[in-house]
Order: sequence, then structure tokens, then C-alpha cells
Amino acid sequence: MPSIKQLEPLPPGSTIGILGGGQLGRMLSLAAARLGFKTHVYSDDPDSPAFEVTSRATHGGYGDLPHLETFAHQVDVVTYEFENVPVEAARHIDGIVPVRPGARALEVAQDRLVEKQFVCDLGIAVAPFAEVSHRRDLIAALQRFKSPSILKTRRLGYDGKGQLSLAPDADAAAAVAALGHRAAILEQRVAFACETSVLVARGVDGAVAYYDCPTNTPAGGILRRSVVPGALSPAAVAEAQEMASRIAAALDYVGVLAVEMFYMGEGASPALLVNEIAPRVHNSGHWTIDACGCSQFENHIRAVAGWPLGSPARHSDAVMENLIGDEADHWHALSAEPGTCLHLYGKREAREGRKMGHLTRLKV
Amino acid sequence: MPSIKQLEPLPPGSTIGILGGGQLGRMLSLAAARLGFKTHVYSDDPDSPAFEVTSRATHGGYGDLPHLETFAHQVDVVTYEFENVPVEAARHIDGIVPVRPGARALEVAQDRLVEKQFVCDLGIAVAPFAEVSHRRDLIAALQRFKSPSILKTRRLGYDGKGQLSLAPDADAAAAVAALGHRAAILEQRVAFACETSVLVARGVDGAVAYYDCPTNTPAGGILRRSVVPGALSPAAVAEAQEMASRIAAALDYVGVLAVEMFYMGEGASPALLVNEIAPRVHNSGHWTIDACGCSQFENHIRAVAGWPLGSPARHSDAVMENLIGDEADHWHALSAEPGTCLHLYGKREAREGRKMGHLTRLKV
Repeated sequence: MPSIKQLEPLPPGSTIGILGGGQLGRMLSLAAARLGFKTHVYSDDPDSPAFEVTSRATHGGYGDLPHLETFAHQVDVVTYEFENVPVEAARHIDGIVPVRPGARALEVAQDRLVEKQFVCDLGIAVAPFAEVSHRRDLIAALQRFKSPSILKTRRLGYDGKGQLSLAPDADAAAAVAALGHRAAILEQRVAFACETSVLVARGVDGAVAYYDCPTNTPAGGILRRSVVPGALSPAAVAEAQEMASRIAAALDYVGVLAVEMFYMGEGASPALLVNEIAPRVHNSGHWTIDACGCSQFENHIRAVAGWPLGSPARHSDAVMENLIGDEADHWHALSAEPGTCLHLYGKREAREGRKMGHLTRLKV
Repeated sequence: MPSIKQLEPLPPGSTIGILGGGQLGRMLSLAAARLGFKTHVYSDDPDSPAFEVTSRATHGGYGDLPHLETFAHQVDVVTYEFENVPVEAARHIDGIVPVRPGARALEVAQDRLVEKQFVCDLGIAVAPFAEVSHRRDLIAALQRFKSPSILKTRRLGYDGKGQLSLAPDADAAAAVAALGHRAAILEQRVAFACETSVLVARGVDGAVAYYDCPTNTPAGGILRRSVVPGALSPAAVAEAQEMASRIAAALDYVGVLAVEMFYMGEGASPALLVNEIAPRVHNSGHWTIDACGCSQFENHIRAVAGWPLGSPARHSDAVMENLIGDEADHWHALSAEPGTCLHLYGKREAREGRKMGHLTRLKV
């Protein structure tokens, strides 16, 4: 249980520790600066984009407890930008300084099977799934689903990595071999109307704020585009937000939580299935920087600092598009587009599939 | 003349040098980061707020040429956040790397007399003024104006410092003594309808972009509030923007230029008088962070980097208020106001009259 002291808001000038130095850490650091906070970024990559935007940076491994301890003693609260922070590391730091959203959210989000079961246990619908520890589990599940499905490693997959699309008659032995015989789950493909997500901010006092639900369009396993307003009816938006809020409350969550969902369409029952959760700020909320008075990044910082949440109200309709790989090479032409807000992450190398930046087109 | 090379846009990943480490330098650095630039902040104050938001900082004097030279060799372009950078320092750096807006703008803006004459020479109206080098100049000018006026030192005044309000029958000897017998100018007070300002961004190619003209309300010599839309008629806004554009062109200006003006009211002739110019981003444009897709800070960075200008279109009406001295102590209550965007500058000590932050209330 957090102590009373930890529930008090951190005054401006306090230092927020951020585990992870990618674009999310960078945008968190920029948002923290707006509110007068200092940040200290901890990352295992010496070339971290987030290192550029703060005077306090530590290069160290996420399992390096002595290094993490030193870091923890220099900050007032710790948050993270990615869900694969080792749970033990988060627990260790939490003995020194509060870790928000906290170790429990990591534990659930790091394992797709645990995550699905956790969501199901809350009475929230998910796509049919099956545990796959062995080839024979996969054979049984494929027979049960009788439809296209996706085999995913339970741990350490993101942006389509560690995933395999399977037809009902797929070769189970080849599939489990392709994923290196790692523990996996099989998820049935569902015929959704669109993908969406709820970005819910939850404060230390349990107050919640929801951003509008975008229509998310992936391509090649990576988010391509988020559009607000999305395709959901107002009733579906309200239902999606209620589901996300139940998940956040069950995790005793503090910060911004992203809940990715499939919208099954008007009149469908259930109207929404939870796909996965991300215990952090999320790519499908990048439009909030330009289309809202208080972005997902600022609301995450507000929450972890114990501040009141900011209004998630949207002042403009928006389309967010990722700039992946060499797409960011067109920065000059993109910077000349009227009404386009360009964001570049300061990454040196434009590798294939790497998120280099994004743009938000505002409809003013 | 800038070389062809200097007219080419700087690619993301380039380093923008910023002279000055206050809140303007801080917000410039944050805007540069959004576009994927690195920044290097040079300041004579080891406690500079802008040092916190970058990994590259130099603590040194503005007249320390060897130090400035080392700094210049580590960056791709240099800009400044305040107009009292020594002109010789700017010239010296410009021999190594482009300085934008440039030494000429500093020269004009650093001396109120030179500035007034420069503006007058462009055929632009200003309030009646007189050079005051000696007590007898002041006596003559007071007699000529026969109305309340303000005695201002020619150099190094800001936020109401180095200024004295005088009645027509004021004691001239006491007044010049109060300003330390420094070279000064007397400006006649004019009965304006409101104060306003034009924030004009000018690119290396001479393209210009104007932000909407706010109504600016000072208190005690410091800007208190800027409101957009302001009280000017559309025709007056167009006239104000044309005046600012003429000044920017005459200075061969690159970056955001602020031109403070008195609006004399509908039907008055002239409708607008130029009060003063600031060759930098400006407090009366802080609302652009929250109410525009591209803020004055981003447009300044775009201009000095040789990029196309961003759209200055405003998506929301806004009221910006400064948080001065201990007003920022109310951060907790202010952070809970719905629709209020809070900005704190990370300054340690809340001295009287010190700008500690600002807030923008959006009308969504």
C-alpha cells in the first residue's frame, strides 16, 4: 500500500524518473518539462532519443539492480515507457521510491495469457484464445476455432514481432518451430468493423479521464494511422471507456493505460472485444499532443506525480500517421504541408519498420 | 550575405545553439526537440531553466569570445532568446556559423532611440519621442509634449525596469538622476484603445506567417494577459501585420519578430503606433503553444533552421496569463482548472516580478 506521503502531489521542480529512452520516454520528458518537472531517463541504449531532451540520463541495463538503485535514489517517482521492464526491477525500485503505474500492471501486460485471463476474469469479452505450450495444444486449438487465427508468443512481442498468421489447416509443428517453441497463445481472428483503443488516465485518487476513441489502422503489424473521431457510436465509446476503466481499477493503476479493442460494429453483441493492454502511453494517442489541451503524455505525468488529471477534451478533429523507416526522409515536404504537425524522434538510423516520427493533421 | 549553403534547410538531428537559458530558451528547446533537432544552450546563469531540457549546455559569459567560439563550433546555427546579446559577440559567432535573426536586429533593438528612428524611417508611426542625453533635453521635451510621458533608458530596460512615468511639470533634474544620468528617450503617453502585438515569423526565403493579434494587458510594466481574438478590427489586424512585415523585411530578419503596438481605436488615424520591437519569441505569443498547431517557438526554430514556416492558424480562442512571483505557488489549484493549460518554467526561486510560468485558458 502506498503511504500517505506518496499520495501527496509532487511539487514542480521534483524529478520524474523514466525507465526507457525511446520516443515515448522522450515525449514524456517534454511533457514533464512543461509542468516544471525535471526528468531523469534510464535506458540500456546509449543512443536513446530521450537522452537528448534532459540533463539527467543514466545508461544501464534494466536488470542491473545496483545501477537502478542509484537511479531511484536520485528521483522522486519512477515511471516507464515500455511494458517489458523486469517485474523484479520494478519491485526493487518500488522499495525506494514509488513506481507508477506499478509492478502489477507490468506482470499482467508482459504475458499475453495472463493478460487475457485477467481481462476475462473482469467479465470483459476477448477474442477466443487458447494456451499453446506444445504442438498438441496448437493442433487442438486450430481444430476448435476452424477459422484463421494468430499464434503469438506469450512474452516479448510487439509491433507484429513474435506473431504468425495461421490458416485452420496450418502445419502445427512448423508453426511452433517458427516461434522457437516458446510458450504462446493462439487467438482466433475476428471479423471486426475496426480497431480502436481507449486511452484512460487514472490518478492516485482513482479519478479517471478518457480520450476520445480513434479508429486505428495497422499495416504489417504496426500502427499506421489513428483517426478521431473514430467509427464508434457514442454508446460504443461509452462502453469502451467503461471497460478500460474497470481494467485500470482492477490493476490499481496510476497513469495512462491503453486498452486496444476490436469494435464489432453497431448492433453486434458484444460490441467490443479487448485485444491487448499496454500499461503506458500509446502510439494511438499521439494525436492528443496536437488536438487536446492536455496530451496523454501530460496526463501520464500528472497522474504519476499525484496531480489532478487534465481535461482530455479534444479541440480539433485529427488524423495521426506514423512515419516508419525511410518515410521520415520526406521531412522537408511534410514540414511544408499546411495544418500538419510534424514530430520527429531524433533517431539516428532509419531502420525498416522503425518508428521515426509521426504527423498529426488537424482539421481546424 | 549568407552563402547558398546557409540557405539550405538543416536536416533533423542538427544542433541548434541557443544564447540565453531562460523560459524562452527553454520553450525554444522543447519546440526544437519536437522537430527532431538537438539543442545546445549557452547561458551565463548556471541555474538556467533551459539547461534542464537538453543534454548540451554551456555556462559562460555573453562577452566571452573564446567560450562562445567553442560553443559555435559545436552547433549548426545559433539563435538567441533575448535582445541584449552583445552585437560584437553575435558578429563573431556569425563568422563561424549563421546567427539568426542576426546582429543587425540586435543592434536596432538594443537602443530605443535607434529603434524608434529605424521604424520612423520606414514610414511607420510611433508615439512622439525625444532624445534625452541631458537634463536640458528633458526640459525641452516635457514642454513640447505638455502631457504625461515616460522616460526610458535607451539600453538594457525590460519589464518596466529603467523607466519613469513623468507628469508635464516633473522635476527634470531628479528624473535624469533617478535613471543614473544614462542616455534616455522621452516618449509621450498616448491614449490608445489597447495594446497589441504582431508575432511575425519570417523564413530564410522571405516568406512570412503572422499570428493573430492579441489584446495585451500589462500591469506594473510586465505583461499580465494576452487575449485572442483581440480588440482589433480585421482591417486593423491586416494593417498591423503589414507594418510588422515591413520591419522584418528591412532587418532581413529570419525567425519570429515581435512588434508591440498601440491600437488607437477604430477610425483613428493612424490606427496603430509601434511601441517597441523584440527580435525574438515573445511573451504575448505564449498562447500559440496551446491554441495553434504550430507555436511561435516552433516557427522560430523552423525559420532559423531554414525550414518552411508552419501554419500560424489558431484552432481555439485563448486567454494567456502570466504567473508572476508567488502566483505560481498556486500550481495545485491551477492544475485542477478544467481547460487550463499550465506551463511552469522550472525556476527555483519565486522572486517578486519574476515570470515563473503562464497559463492558457482555451475556449474549446
